[in-house]
Amino acid sequence: MQKADKSNENQRPLILVSNDDGITAKGIRELVEAMTQLGEVIVVAPDSPQSGMGHAITIHMPLKARKSDIFKDLGVEAYECSGTPADCVKLAKFHLFENRTPDLVVSGINHGSNTSISILYSGTMSAAIEGAIEGLPAIGFSLCDYGENADFSHVRPYLLKIAEQTLKNGLPKNIALNVNFPARFDKETQIEQTIKGAKVCRQAHARWQEKFDLRTDPYGREYLWLAGEFVNPDKGEDTDEWAVNNGYVSIVPCQFDMTAHHGITHINNEWNIEK
Amino acid sequence: MQKADKSNENQRPLILVSNDDGITAKGIRELVEAMTQLGEVIVVAPDSPQSGMGHAITIHMPLKARKSDIFKDLGVEAYECSGTPADCVKLAKFHLFENRTPDLVVSGINHGSNTSISILYSGTMSAAIEGAIEGLPAIGFSLCDYGENADFSHVRPYLLKIAEQTLKNGLPKNIALNVNFPARFDKETQIEQTIKGAKVCRQAHARWQEKFDLRTDPYGREYLWLAGEFVNPDKGEDTDEWAVNNGYVSIVPCQFDMTAHHGITHINNEWNIEK
Repeated sequence: MQKADKSNENQRPLILVSNDDGITAKGIRELVEAMTQLGEVIVVAPDSPQSGMGHAITIHMPLKARKSDIFKDLGVEAYECSGTPADCVKLAKFHLFENRTPDLVVSGINHGSNTSISILYSGTMSAAIEGAIEGLPAIGFSLCDYGENADFSHVRPYLLKIAEQTLKNGLPKNIALNVNFPARFDKETQIEQTIKGAKVCRQAHARWQEKFDLRTDPYGREYLWLAGEFVNPDKGEDTDEWAVNNGYVSIVPCQFDMTAHHGITHINNEWNIEK
Repeated sequence: MQKADKSNENQRPLILVSNDDGITAKGIRELVEAMTQLGEVIVVAPDSPQSGMGHAITIHMPLKARKSDIFKDLGVEAYECSGTPADCVKLAKFHLFENRTPDLVVSGINHGSNTSISILYSGTMSAAIEGAIEGLPAIGFSLCDYGENADFSHVRPYLLKIAEQTLKNGLPKNIALNVNFPARFDKETQIEQTIKGAKVCRQAHARWQEKFDLRTDPYGREYLWLAGEFVNPDKGEDTDEWAVNNGYVSIVPCQFDMTAHHGITHINNEWNIEK
């Protein structure tokens, strides 16, 4: 189990906060505010938006990190970093924190859903998964509302409960949580939604059906914008997509061992390759 | 099973090649040359190196793609793209190829190992996984030699066998292969190595132990370089790391459903959260 480091035993838990929308996003402030109720918070977050960065790390460029007073009003130490969310967690663990180990890594709250296949493209979840790789309890939080001024006011009780339970019980080894909150207002009806509870789910088997907008720049050169539509043929009621679309908070435990064990047997049986 | 598209039935298989070291890398030329023996090849690859990009996609910037004559000597159509490896596969599937579906997506050959946890950071594997998400048989190839002028001459027979078997047998649904080749010369002894065969493996439970080099730029400002050491406490002889370190080609079937199913039971049993 990944539990609090002994060196922090007599102190409040140390909570590392990161995100992928950048240190100035509304979602990270919501998360920082909530976490100050549970422990000592340190923020290490990108200095610019990093959405869609997946598990990217910066290896061919130098990184810059500098102290920021953006959360001074909350009494929270913060650093902004030129790199990706995964870089931020590595930087915190191996450089900034030196002899202290965070008791919890939290990332978000992302402006936009990270259910299903979106976990692969998600910078928010890469920070959480990087935490889990480092042996730390870690959670990525996302809100199913892409708006810059998204309303996060309804998520606080669940944010606190999930973080509290993780601090108290730890998480199984090599697992991070992918937590998604329903939007406060229904996208179509604009009716306010009440969260009905939380469900521990599996990742829905859905995907993005892409299309590319072909445009012409002021110099007559063609360029493209990636756009896509989320397609979910998975009708299971045990999925994260079902949960958030039915008023529940979805909690998916995620692993970073990507081995498809059933595939090993299949290839050993079916293939004819010199071994 | 993901098999050849019917529309290509009477033609040679259509093979999409991408990579993350960029279209001018030595490794992609090796892969393109080999694939021309098996089918019609089209290259869509980044116009600059994208190592460490993980499963990043470009959503807040436009993409540029232009035809390249870099593989004209091999009679191969090629496009270079301003985006990431995952962008390249999306672009090929949803924009450039229009009515044709590739029978196989191959990525690499990466200059450097992508065994174990490196799969998460790997642009090479993100192109293959993007192929699998799109329902296409897909393979990422990497050589355990980071050199720009790495020697790829010993891998051709295995490259062909693995691609041939994939074209012939397909792959189980939602699976991409992560294939790593031992370096031609032993890193320490510089003795030439003979590949002993191929092993279907699981991902080793290893990680990168990071350190950051702190330096000062010409203007007196501090910056950092991410550097790290690969640490492998996993002594299993069924892992990709064991295989490549013992003269075998490693083949790991990878899935993109990251749900840790045992974690669902654990949290449902141990946690006290309003449901």
